[in-house]
Amino acid sequence: MTPEQYAFPLENYLDRSSFGRLKAFAAERTTPHLVMDLDLVEKRYRELIALLPMAKVYYAVKANPMDEIVTLLNDLGSRFDVASCPELDQLLRLGVSPDRVSYGNTIKKARDVKYFYDRGVRLFVSDSQEDLKNIATFAPGARVYFRIITEGTGSDWPLSRKFGAHAEVIFLLIKQAKELGLEPYGLSFHVGSQQRDIGQWDDALARCTYLFEAAEFSGINLKMINLGGGFPAHYLEATQPLEIYANEIKRFLADNFSDEAPEIYIEPGRSLTADAGVLVAEVVLVTKKARNSLYRWVFLDVGMFSGLIETMGEAIKYPIFFDKEGPAEEIILAGPTCDSMDILYEDYKYKMPSTVVAGDRVYFFSAGAYTQSYSSVYFNGFPPLAAYVLPRAGR
Amino acid sequence: MTPEQYAFPLENYLDRSSFGRLKAFAAERTTPHLVMDLDLVEKRYRELIALLPMAKVYYAVKANPMDEIVTLLNDLGSRFDVASCPELDQLLRLGVSPDRVSYGNTIKKARDVKYFYDRGVRLFVSDSQEDLKNIATFAPGARVYFRIITEGTGSDWPLSRKFGAHAEVIFLLIKQAKELGLEPYGLSFHVGSQQRDIGQWDDALARCTYLFEAAEFSGINLKMINLGGGFPAHYLEATQPLEIYANEIKRFLADNFSDEAPEIYIEPGRSLTADAGVLVAEVVLVTKKARNSLYRWVFLDVGMFSGLIETMGEAIKYPIFFDKEGPAEEIILAGPTCDSMDILYEDYKYKMPSTVVAGDRVYFFSAGAYTQSYSSVYFNGFPPLAAYVLPRAGR
Repeated sequence: MTPEQYAFPLENYLDRSSFGRLKAFAAERTTPHLVMDLDLVEKRYRELIALLPMAKVYYAVKANPMDEIVTLLNDLGSRFDVASCPELDQLLRLGVSPDRVSYGNTIKKARDVKYFYDRGVRLFVSDSQEDLKNIATFAPGARVYFRIITEGTGSDWPLSRKFGAHAEVIFLLIKQAKELGLEPYGLSFHVGSQQRDIGQWDDALARCTYLFEAAEFSGINLKMINLGGGFPAHYLEATQPLEIYANEIKRFLADNFSDEAPEIYIEPGRSLTADAGVLVAEVVLVTKKARNSLYRWVFLDVGMFSGLIETMGEAIKYPIFFDKEGPAEEIILAGPTCDSMDILYEDYKYKMPSTVVAGDRVYFFSAGAYTQSYSSVYFNGFPPLAAYVLPRAGR
Repeated sequence: MTPEQYAFPLENYLDRSSFGRLKAFAAERTTPHLVMDLDLVEKRYRELIALLPMAKVYYAVKANPMDEIVTLLNDLGSRFDVASCPELDQLLRLGVSPDRVSYGNTIKKARDVKYFYDRGVRLFVSDSQEDLKNIATFAPGARVYFRIITEGTGSDWPLSRKFGAHAEVIFLLIKQAKELGLEPYGLSFHVGSQQRDIGQWDDALARCTYLFEAAEFSGINLKMINLGGGFPAHYLEATQPLEIYANEIKRFLADNFSDEAPEIYIEPGRSLTADAGVLVAEVVLVTKKARNSLYRWVFLDVGMFSGLIETMGEAIKYPIFFDKEGPAEEIILAGPTCDSMDILYEDYKYKMPSTVVAGDRVYFFSAGAYTQSYSSVYFNGFPPLAAYVLPRAGR
């Protein structure tokens, strides 16, 4: 019996010629680093607006704040969901108009509200009375939308509990916003990043319908629903194609708002950038801990603290490609630091061709979101992950 | 019945006058930031060498790599345990002699070994054949010590599995090192950071005794045991005083090496720097998610990704001081980012005076280790944690 040979469905993630181009680019640079393909970001953006033409896109900058990506999306007509003052500064520096910015973080200081307002931002999210009062004081007359709490069930990276409030609290906030001279504009929710259960959108939309009606009963016409993000990227676990999500959302809106459909905002981050990035690393060491160990340990020069924080709890499973042939071997994958937390995958066993040796390169696909900007400053002395943009094809 | 009043045992962590000095220093700086008190680092170092006078101290730079701390410890006679090339560069820039450096990371590239050797480092750790061969090739004749695997039971931040090898593998490495022209010098282990179970040292030392004897039987005299780190800092959970650890270690060495005691190395990191640092933050928001919520959420301007990564899984429980009076209230503590992982303490309920409002300052004691250098580059746009050194008293 011949042993199983290593096989990786490269074409599922990148066509051969694109990979060849990326590999050649990466070969001239030391590892670890991230390479972003702007053509793929553009492709994803165009697919999204084609499927949800009624939606205003607010790109969640935190997913990948590289200047080139912000500029590209700004040129393509995207708006921006911003989490902090430094992000706003960056966008303004890149020429983004403040009327295309939503301050989408419910957790903000009074002076942060003022900072955004002074720079022309007029759209704010809120989920608490304290924050709403700050907005009324420091951003008078601004549009406010309210975040409903969701549980994030079914997502790989849930966004439950911390954000949003229950419907009863939201209803009070809507009325209070009007009293405070603000414009209660709509509702938002977030089903969790990398959400695979489409029913989660239905549940959240149903709560929005109820609150729209309750507000109308109090003489307040809400005008917008912000669906948040959660559209999936192409990691190892199977997901529905974007089309399925889009159709479900359209069907739901048609069923519930037949007369006057609300404005729809979406906040894609991961779904626009993840698949456009490849993280290139190197094998540092392949070892056995005991003579009879079942699995070898494969240590890479990238780890949980240099960009792969979402491997925490093995939450996000990147497609990992070893560019060699040989019999397939199940391995334990770990990062380079002196920290035992810095183990990438131990329960889930990745396969590697057993011919791999120290110095070989490793490619993490779909690594364009929540990686570079999340790497640590100087963890164990290792520098933050480098990030490059691949020269655009045919330009 | 009067409600319980908020009470925090400040004196357990810092005397009133030291805190006053720190508070005044911090008041002039925006939050969040870390303030290090070098007098306390020096005090901890002197206590440690007084209790373990036979030990050579290799400060684990990764715990807090601030230049001022490296310089202080170098002046005090400490040696250094280094994890990466950038750390070595930093030390050499600060005037540390390479013969006082141990390359203490078992995971290193062949070119990293050469990098250290070319700069004068002659002491390396290893736990695998592949790495040992690299050392033989690129650091000929160097001293090598071998890391035994431990399980880290009883520690708050275990260092199990990823590092070290089983005794059978170590024994082969010792013999192989000699054949390769290296100097097999000793053994190391690490019981896990913040280890409270003293018996863990006994277990590990017993394994060292066995390997010392086995090596001697093969004509190799090992000369050193590196006890690693794991000496505790003063977090919320009770720990033994350092004296108890020191006495146990001394007793064990006397019992097992009556004739010729091995050289003892220790690698304190956390225990020298944690208690000397205070992380100063600000309350951003205090909210209720529902009208009948039992607990209010308290959002701070520092979180898991801006220095408090060790709150992951609520592993490290910092003593957190709200500088106000009032009835005590149990709360949920969270950071400022749009990431639901960025919840600091939800299971363990910290107490806060219910008089606290947004804008009030919060002090995390014992935050001098594994904080600033572990903060992320630009997570949600938030900058890395700032770090300062308090002007030294009476200088």
